[in-house]
This record gives sequence, C-alpha cells and structure tokens, in this order.
Amino acid sequence: MKIAVLPGDGIGTEIVAEAVKVLNALDLSFEMETALVGGAAYDAHGHPLPDATLALAKAADAVLFGAVGDWKYDRLERQFRPEQAILGLRKHLGLFANFRPAICYEQLTHASSLKPELVAGLDILIIRELTGDIYFGQPRGRRTAVDGHFPGAEEAFDTMRYSRPEIERIAHVAFQAARRRNGKVTSVDKANVLETFQFWKDVVTEVHAQYPDVKLDHMYVDNAAMQLVKAPKAFDVVVTGNMFGDILSDEAAMLTGSIGMLPSASLDAHNKGLYEPSHGSAPDIAGQGVANPLATILSAAMMLRYSLQQPEAADRIERAVQAVLSAGLRTGDIWSEGTRKVGTREMGDAVVAAI
Amino acid sequence: MKIAVLPGDGIGTEIVAEAVKVLNALDLSFEMETALVGGAAYDAHGHPLPDATLALAKAADAVLFGAVGDWKYDRLERQFRPEQAILGLRKHLGLFANFRPAICYEQLTHASSLKPELVAGLDILIIRELTGDIYFGQPRGRRTAVDGHFPGAEEAFDTMRYSRPEIERIAHVAFQAARRRNGKVTSVDKANVLETFQFWKDVVTEVHAQYPDVKLDHMYVDNAAMQLVKAPKAFDVVVTGNMFGDILSDEAAMLTGSIGMLPSASLDAHNKGLYEPSHGSAPDIAGQGVANPLATILSAAMMLRYSLQQPEAADRIERAVQAVLSAGLRTGDIWSEGTRKVGTREMGDAVVAAI
Ligand SMILES: CC(C)[C@H](C(=O)O)[C@@H](O)C(=O)O
Ligand SMILES: CC(C)[C@H](C(=O)O)[C@@H](O)C(=O)O
Repeated sequence: MKIAVLPGDGIGTEIVAEAVKVLNALDLSFEMETALVGGAAYDAHGHPLPDATLALAKAADAVLFGAVGDWKYDRLERQFRPEQAILGLRKHLGLFANFRPAICYEQLTHASSLKPELVAGLDILIIRELTGDIYFGQPRGRRTAVDGHFPGAEEAFDTMRYSRPEIERIAHVAFQAARRRNGKVTSVDKANVLETFQFWKDVVTEVHAQYPDVKLDHMYVDNAAMQLVKAPKAFDVVVTGNMFGDILSDEAAMLTGSIGMLPSASLDAHNKGLYEPSHGSAPDIAGQGVANPLATILSAAMMLRYSLQQPEAADRIERAVQAVLSAGLRTGDIWSEGTRKVGTREMGDAVVAAI
Repeated sequence: MKIAVLPGDGIGTEIVAEAVKVLNALDLSFEMETALVGGAAYDAHGHPLPDATLALAKAADAVLFGAVGDWKYDRLERQFRPEQAILGLRKHLGLFANFRPAICYEQLTHASSLKPELVAGLDILIIRELTGDIYFGQPRGRRTAVDGHFPGAEEAFDTMRYSRPEIERIAHVAFQAARRRNGKVTSVDKANVLETFQFWKDVVTEVHAQYPDVKLDHMYVDNAAMQLVKAPKAFDVVVTGNMFGDILSDEAAMLTGSIGMLPSASLDAHNKGLYEPSHGSAPDIAGQGVANPLATILSAAMMLRYSLQQPEAADRIERAVQAVLSAGLRTGDIWSEGTRKVGTREMGDAVVAAI
C-alpha cells in the first residue's frame, strides 16, 4: 500500500504529521513518500505541482493531502498559485467523485450556529462532481464582446459543460452511496435556467431507473442553499456539479460548527483517491501547534476504507477519535467551557493512545 | 405615478391584493393597471410574458410583482414555463441591480434556524447583478463534445460572461448603497478558478478607487456561503454576480427564518424597478387565504422609496408593519406560541389600520 503524502502549506505540515503518526500506529505496512505541493513547492521548484510530485501521486494507491495556500502567493499569476496544485491533481488523476460528509458530532453539537435540535445527529453526504463543469470547461478567457449588453466592451468568460458519461458516472456513485446509507438522493441543479443542468437532471433521472430502491429528488441550487439552513437533516445524499458542490459542501460543513472535524475523499473510477481535510491551510495559525488534526486523521480513515480496503483499520481510527472527544480533549477551534484544550500534537498522541 | 401590477400565480394574487390595498390607503394618487404573468398568462394567452404585459411593464414607472410558478407547468418546454416571465422582464426592462435585504425582525428572531445571538439585529443587503452572467450568456445548448473527458459524447453547455461596464455599474450601485449604510462592501467572486470572476474582482477593485470612504473586502463564494452561516452580522453590503447572488441571497434570506417578511427590488439604470417578495408562489397554500402578505407590502414600500420618490410613504408602511408585528399579529409561517394567528386579508387590513 503506497501512500503519497503531500502536506502542503500553512497548518498542512502539522496536521498531516499527526495523521501519519496515527497510520503508523495501526500495525499495517504502508510505503509512505512525502513531496512538496502548493506554495511550498512553488518556493522550492517554481511550480505548485512539480512533475515529481504529480508522478509520485500517480504511482501511489492513495494521496494524503494537507492544505495549500497563503496570502503571500495571492499576487502570483493564476497558474502559479497554490490552489492550482489541487485543481491539477484532480484533473490529472481523474478524481471526479468528491465525498464531503457533513457530520455533527454529538460532543460538539453546541458548536454549530444552528439550534441544537436542527443539527443533533446530522449526517449528510455531499457528493460533488470534481473534474467537469465550469472549473475546466474551455473556451475561457478575456476578449472583446461582440454581443450582449455592451458590444465592443472588454469581457471575460468561462464555459460550463457536462457530458452524458460525466453525469452518468457521478450519478452511479451517488445512488450506490445512498444504498449504503438511507436510500435517498437529492440531485441539485438549476434546470430552470441552465442548459447544462437541464441535461444533468435528465441524465440523473435516466440513471435512477437502475436504482428503483433509491428515492430521488431534484432541487434547485438556490432552494438547496435554503433547505440546508432550514432543515439539514432532511437530506441524506446530495449530488451536484463542481461549482454548486463547492458552495453547498462548504455551507453544509459550516452548519456542523466544526469544520476542523470534517474529512473528504476525492476518488477516481478505480477507487484510487486523494484525502484531505475540508478546511484550508489557515496561515494565521500555522506553526503554532494549535491546529485541529482530526479532520486529517479522519481523512486517513476514509483512505483506509475507500482506497486501501482496510475497513477495520478505518473503524479503529474513527472509534479512537470518538473516544478522544468523549474524554473531553479539544483543540482551540472546538474548545468550550468544561473541556480540556490541547495542541495539535497532543491531540494526535491521544488518538494514537486510543488506538 | 404609473404602477404595473402583475400578481402572477399561486399566492401571488392574494398577497398582491393586500399590497394594493395598503398603497391605496396612503392618499397618494397612483395609476395602477393589472396584467397576467407567469402560468396564469400562459393559460390565457399561451405565453408566460405576453406582449401586452411586457408593454404595460415598460410603460409604467414601477412594477409590483407577486410570484410565478406551479407544479402543473413543470413539463412545459422551458420557453413557456412561468419563470421565463421573470427572466424576460429582467432582460427587457434592463433590471440589472437586484436588492435583497436580509433583515431579522426583533419580534421574529426566534424563528431563525440560527441561535438568536447570531441573528438578532441582522440587517445585511445582498446586491445581485441580474441581467448578465451565465443566466443570459450565449452560446448555450446541446452538442457533441469535441474535447474534454469524453470527446464524441453528447454534452450540454452554457456561457458565463461579464463585461467591464456591467461590472462597473453594479459596483457603483453597491458602493453607493454602502455609503447609506455601514460603509462596507464584500464582493463575492471565484477568482481562483474563473476568468469571469478574476475580471469581476479586478474591475470592482478599480471602481473602489472612487469610494475611498467605503471599505471593500473580497471573498470567495464558497467561503461566503460559510461565513453567512458562521457570522452573518459581519456583513453589510454583499455584491456579486447573478448566479452566486441567486444562491447566496436565498441562503441569507433563510438565515432570518422569516422569508415571508423579505421584500426585493430589481432596478434599471434610471431607478425604474420591479418589486417582489423574496419568496415564491407557494402553490401548496394558494387560495387558502393564509399566505403572509408582508414581504409584498414591504416590496411596495421599497417601490415608493426607490422608484416613486416617496420616502415618507415608504416609512409609513414600514412603521405600520412593525406596529402590526409588535401587536402580535402573525400569519401561519411566522406564528409562535403567544401570538395571534391571522389570515392574509386580516394581516393586510391590520397594516392599513396602522397607517
Ligand atoms: C481552492 C479551490 C480551487 C477549491 C475549489 O474551488 O474546488 C476549494 O475551494 C475546494 O473546494 O477544494
Ligand atoms: C425562478 C428563477 C429563474 C429565479 C432566478 O434564478 O433568478 C429565482 O430563483 C430568483 O432568484 O428570482
């Protein structure tokens, strides 16, 4: 089992170190190799996703990713900015299926912005298509407008697009995930305005014919943004495109109040995947040893389950995290009166001890 | 002062009737003319936005709009569906500036999904560009893919675009609105991925040079969706494109817990506007006399303020609504223990009496 370890920038190195420690505590044998990515790679090699890093990621069975980005790279040309690394990895590894669970841990219900009764026990799964849509559609750029409201004016443009097989494969992923959960899929679109998402809705509906045991709803993206606030527990699996999924998965994550706890997986067609926390590189607290490593540790658990076929090891990690929370250990982001504040390393050590 | 009254479908007719009653109670002289729009217009004339309706709207100083849509039109071809009326009105009247306040009324704070301390006193204004972006960009349609992941496959596509003058004019609207409020604009983009929104960010930044007294922040749309949940009161004016604005304005509205209270205005370059409640046509409760007319009544107040230059009359309506709420009257959607449940008409009568 070969794992490419890409810590990245900001708190990335600190949180990934803890996840690696936890993996090493499992008595399984992994081959782990580390490489630079994001701003760190740009500083060392002039590119956020150097060829060697991409080659390592391609050769591995799974990628454990930290986070990328820092204010200091904001003025670079787009192609050199840290987030291009993550877009490049998704594209070159074909990671089309992004799993973003939004789970509200019993011990942390109070941390949510929402009233406890609305989020207690929340467990929804956002499945975001990750290699299509307006993220990668060509053509895009700047030009002189030839029509529209101001012909002759300078304009910028992008292309949204989805092909039938792209929609089919993510729909299958969603229906299969729903079968392992509560049997309900909400497909989010904007079919009332966009050609792309009328097609999305049509194709998802067609694929659904193969899953008569799963219930399918369609919802407009604006309504979905509302219903997530109003009654998040009404959802089970949500499937949507890359752009809407970017927005809704972050909204859903924040509903739980503890984004420092939420893992994510991005899978290709053969269960190879990239695993990363749902939060960012938090440059403001980098290097201080205070970041929450649990989202990354739980991402490692997802990696064991989805890519490395080690479900028991995944369970052990998840149980250990629960035990540590129940024992009252908290990093600063999830701390509250009556619990014990610990640093990144202490939290990682506690999970190792609980394993 | 000529007002085109377009009640539309579902609860539209009921709530607009109450707003008209309130306008008539003001002792101002309006010329009001009513026309069919949406599904009702399709049923009568075979088109959701008949020429006569559009002509009436064009000739008026302002449009008072109810809501459109009903499940029974879902299977019509896109061009005949009720929502095409609203897209057509925006386009043909040049209504590029959509004002969507998200206000949490003191009397209704408890109705929010969010903890009271997070929303008490909430008063933010989402300004959504309304005639550009991927809503109207050409080309769009279906075709055979020539590149991408599956060349040769059937695909659907849309074009996102913004020209410099389109961004400039909405940026001016936002900075000017912020001057009348708390002096802060958050421009929401996805400049890290989209050419269109890198351009958006650049142009908004340029226009900002003319408003040194206003503070400008930039925020990615995914982060904005999170921050709205985490700390909505940190925002003042939010300005964004048509697609992101559709999602974020609905999310923000739902945060208040009382979308039945929220008005909206869509303005052209000369302060002519269309005014409508932020909620939809609610076919499930149509005809029962239970819909909340306050969002529509408050939209009429916005109309008086923005298009008809009658700020005192607008104040009178807004004070009357406050008085009615303080007296404990509530329609079903905002009712809670200890308040008095009233119907649509009774609520309208109470506002008239308070004027
Ligand atoms: C960094 C950015 C390009 C990325 C995205 O938009 O996909 C991020 O927001 C995410 O969700 O992983
Ligand atoms: C009905 C639909 C086309 C419309 C939109 O997407 O703009 C609606 O959601 C709105 O926000 O007014």
